[in-house]
Amino acid sequence: MAKPLRGVLVVGQSGGPTPVINASLAGVIAEAKRHKCFTGIYGLIHGIEGALKEELRDLESETAAELDLLAHTPASALGSCRYKLEEDEYELILDVFRTHDVRHFIYIGGNDSMDTCHRIAELAAISGYKIQVIGVPKTIDNDLAYTDHCPGYGSAARFLALATRDTGRDLESMATFDDVIILEAMGRNTGWLTAAAALGKVQTTPAAFPEDEAPHIVYVPEIPFDEERFLDNIAHIHARLGRVFVVVSEGIRDKAGQFIGQHKVADSGRDAFGHLVHSLTTGVAAYLTDIVREELTLQARFLRPGLIGRAMSSCVSETDRQEAMQVGVGAVTLLANGQSGGMVTLERLSDDPYRCRLSVAPLADVANAEKLMPREFVNDDGNMITQSFIEYALPLVDGPFPLLARLKGEQIPRRTNLQN
Amino acid sequence: MAKPLRGVLVVGQSGGPTPVINASLAGVIAEAKRHKCFTGIYGLIHGIEGALKEELRDLESETAAELDLLAHTPASALGSCRYKLEEDEYELILDVFRTHDVRHFIYIGGNDSMDTCHRIAELAAISGYKIQVIGVPKTIDNDLAYTDHCPGYGSAARFLALATRDTGRDLESMATFDDVIILEAMGRNTGWLTAAAALGKVQTTPAAFPEDEAPHIVYVPEIPFDEERFLDNIAHIHARLGRVFVVVSEGIRDKAGQFIGQHKVADSGRDAFGHLVHSLTTGVAAYLTDIVREELTLQARFLRPGLIGRAMSSCVSETDRQEAMQVGVGAVTLLANGQSGGMVTLERLSDDPYRCRLSVAPLADVANAEKLMPREFVNDDGNMITQSFIEYALPLVDGPFPLLARLKGEQIPRRTNLQN
Repeated sequence: MAKPLRGVLVVGQSGGPTPVINASLAGVIAEAKRHKCFTGIYGLIHGIEGALKEELRDLESETAAELDLLAHTPASALGSCRYKLEEDEYELILDVFRTHDVRHFIYIGGNDSMDTCHRIAELAAISGYKIQVIGVPKTIDNDLAYTDHCPGYGSAARFLALATRDTGRDLESMATFDDVIILEAMGRNTGWLTAAAALGKVQTTPAAFPEDEAPHIVYVPEIPFDEERFLDNIAHIHARLGRVFVVVSEGIRDKAGQFIGQHKVADSGRDAFGHLVHSLTTGVAAYLTDIVREELTLQARFLRPGLIGRAMSSCVSETDRQEAMQVGVGAVTLLANGQSGGMVTLERLSDDPYRCRLSVAPLADVANAEKLMPREFVNDDGNMITQSFIEYALPLVDGPFPLLARLKGEQIPRRTNLQN
Repeated sequence: MAKPLRGVLVVGQSGGPTPVINASLAGVIAEAKRHKCFTGIYGLIHGIEGALKEELRDLESETAAELDLLAHTPASALGSCRYKLEEDEYELILDVFRTHDVRHFIYIGGNDSMDTCHRIAELAAISGYKIQVIGVPKTIDNDLAYTDHCPGYGSAARFLALATRDTGRDLESMATFDDVIILEAMGRNTGWLTAAAALGKVQTTPAAFPEDEAPHIVYVPEIPFDEERFLDNIAHIHARLGRVFVVVSEGIRDKAGQFIGQHKVADSGRDAFGHLVHSLTTGVAAYLTDIVREELTLQARFLRPGLIGRAMSSCVSETDRQEAMQVGVGAVTLLANGQSGGMVTLERLSDDPYRCRLSVAPLADVANAEKLMPREFVNDDGNMITQSFIEYALPLVDGPFPLLARLKGEQIPRRTNLQN
């Protein structure tokens, strides 16, 4: 336990918001107020852009009640950004930090943000400016390496699982009219979120996973997508059940790595990191819905909740909210113990009962590493999750969910001689 | 109070489900078990299709605990349908009813279902078959006449209002990257649901309705849509705020009555009633998003939760659930009092405190009548709701919602001589 630097703590939020990223911020503020080494607690307005523009906000005056409300407020209260720093801009940031005697920096974000974090730490070291830097994981994509999972994932996953379960019941009700629903889930490169849509199938225990409950098919980007097989899957399930609920990642690709439906999409944008912003387009679900209608002549609809899934505070996983707060508190504890250059991680101790503890991984290792879903989390056919994924993900969404009703009464025997 | 017929009660669910239509069913079953005039309680499997096919289910064995669970289960537990009866099929239904000694019929549904209900009553009278018929209102569209509002509306409206509020915060967080979000709401002909998206703007009292909170624009189908004015609206708000959150009904039309974006949409279907199933297509939000990107070169995304909005049980309005149950109970009470030929209605006694009582309207009047939004519920510019709509709709969604946090700390004074 080294002696911490004495100076201002600056905290920023980066990348796509989550329903619990403010819980991390609340954890940072609450814990920082307890330590004397922090001569001020400032927030970056719109993440690293706030550092560049010297737009900082005082956070010390937030009361305990206000922090509790903050922990229950969706999106990034400080403002967030998707800004990739130019080489010469890192120097500007260090200038701003020097001017305000910033000696502690916490960045709450995903892959790209951990890279930013890491490079600030490196550059400060080179230029001889003393500063402690800690990253706090946040992403609904759940794709950060070295941590069991990422705060934000559990809540976005919970919304998606509940939406799929409930809309699956809607489809079942309307099965004499509707045939196919295709729900598009966020997650460009990894299928963690898409896969979680199937967690609403689980009844009372992880092993009770009825085939006929929605969703019936799940396609993640880790498995190459084949249109023929897709249509086969739909046709088979429809023949058996009279309905098919499909959840598909926005980022599914064919064997050649080409995004599905891409050729039907004009004018798609790229974000500042050069990633294709697939969700700005009409999207893959709309495309697949067209195919199903044309090739199978079935009634098909697509659902595209998009950002609602990462914002909806009514469906937050309490486990996720608690952990989001804990990683915020943990980051400040590391700083107060004189540490720097790490990202707080969650280390799983057991699935049942679910237990995690905080740990830390070097920013250098985390930066830009992307954690794909292990192959064993998807079945051999590549269209449904496995028990090992359920055991991994169910506690993160506060599952299994309370049961829904099914009418149990017998069918009344027929007495009429029906002609049709 | 006339003497009721003695015989079997049959209940069916019709049209698009809601998150609380099963609460009406639970109310029907629970109340029917208390009356001796009902010699059996049967459910129609998939609505009137179940009558045609003689697919009936016994409902009497459901326990109080099971009925409570049912009242908390989304979608139509009996199965629903969108089936328009042919003239000769009414006779078949009466045959099935005769065979099972059905003397009471409750149909839970919208406009088309009340028409079905009414015609069964008429035909029975003509053919001398004694049966009591009562309709129970249900529609997220809120477009039934003679009732203050429709069970199902409050819950779908609550989901939409919460989703808009929370995703509005997401857009605000990301305003240095994203510019415009266009959320497509269900409701083909009437704007009740679309308008409700703005209820999340309300803070603590109906009069506190901040202009800058999402949504900034709301377009309902009752007001002709003009693309030029739309782009003007967006450009102005974006210039002022740096972000624009738009909610648009799936059914907006231009002055000539042409659906917006329709010409870009191929192969759109029609339902059994000849209505255009607009939501089967890519939809108007995708089209408007394209326009905004092309004409204003702004970053724009569309959200299309679609059926999620009428299924999501996590966001149910408790007021709505209670009323849904009450109209179910009320229908049975009418039957037990010997009445027939009416739809249960909700009659508002006061806005604050909110109070409604049950009443009844003739099926002949309700059938196929469609209640549009009154002009005074939309502002003069035709792009936002008014205080009178807020006073009408806020109690139905259990609003105002608990406040979200906003950071209150001051901005830290600049000390650096910034070059950019």
